[in-house]
Amino acid sequence: MIRDKKDTINFDHLSEEDKHYLAGFLDGDGSIITQIVKNDSFKYKHTIRVSIVFYQKSSRIWFLIQLQKMLNVGIIRKKKDGVSELTILGYGPIKKFLKALLPYIRMKKHLAKLVLEILDKRQEVKSKACFIEVCHLVDKTAAFTDSKNRKHTAFTVEGSI
Amino acid sequence: MIRDKKDTINFDHLSEEDKHYLAGFLDGDGSIITQIVKNDSFKYKHTIRVSIVFYQKSSRIWFLIQLQKMLNVGIIRKKKDGVSELTILGYGPIKKFLKALLPYIRMKKHLAKLVLEILDKRQEVKSKACFIEVCHLVDKTAAFTDSKNRKHTAFTVEGSI
Repeated sequence: MIRDKKDTINFDHLSEEDKHYLAGFLDGDGSIITQIVKNDSFKYKHTIRVSIVFYQKSSRIWFLIQLQKMLNVGIIRKKKDGVSELTILGYGPIKKFLKALLPYIRMKKHLAKLVLEILDKRQEVKSKACFIEVCHLVDKTAAFTDSKNRKHTAFTVEGSI
Repeated sequence: MIRDKKDTINFDHLSEEDKHYLAGFLDGDGSIITQIVKNDSFKYKHTIRVSIVFYQKSSRIWFLIQLQKMLNVGIIRKKKDGVSELTILGYGPIKKFLKALLPYIRMKKHLAKLVLEILDKRQEVKSKACFIEVCHLVDKTAAFTDSKNRKHTAFTVEGSI
């Protein structure tokens, strides 16, 4: 059996101390982002993109590198505007990360639970109705985040597939 | 003996879990701010202002209130721009807060140590030279923060007193 490298990602190596700290850092600096993205190559002409991003001024990129080493996951991007990002992508890694931190997260607990629900339901989608239901959950995350105008919502998806 | 209420502030009630979480939240969302403020009523015509601020969108002010209750310290301000702040003021409370969290802070450890040094030295100032020395330490904090142009620096203080 060939195992996808992503399957081997886990956060069992994190100590209790790390988990409490990371939950605080995620609540303070991290963004848990879900988006409906239009893409005709997918069955329902849309896909659900999920990411977790930590932002720091590039002068503190050393800490994002430290975090990346600690987590064993994520991509670092140094942007031209002086801000750097550590981004975790992929349903598998994000599901495992949020599950590992859920008992420790305080401020973003509802959002984290909702995103875990989205990830679970997304993987079980067997019909258009199911997909729309997941899109409704994505719309619900907007109440917990600072995202403003979302281009694609359950409503626009329903009208276009 | 009349005791100042501020003397009774301590963070002994925080659990280990709280301290790890708070250190992460401070590293992610908190600002440790030091400023040289001009004020002719002071001996050296300037004072050193120190504050710790947590910022959140006002829709999440509930979490700042929770944090304030947990810490037993700080003032909450809901601003018109949609952002709310929890601010800790006063040398005593800030010294105790940073001392309590120092072993747990990761990203802002150097800054926290420097601010503790400023607070210690500030309280021992007995001459103009000592005050200028403290101002130099305040200038040094700029390397660890996102503050841009500082109006008053050790150089301007030295030239005006």
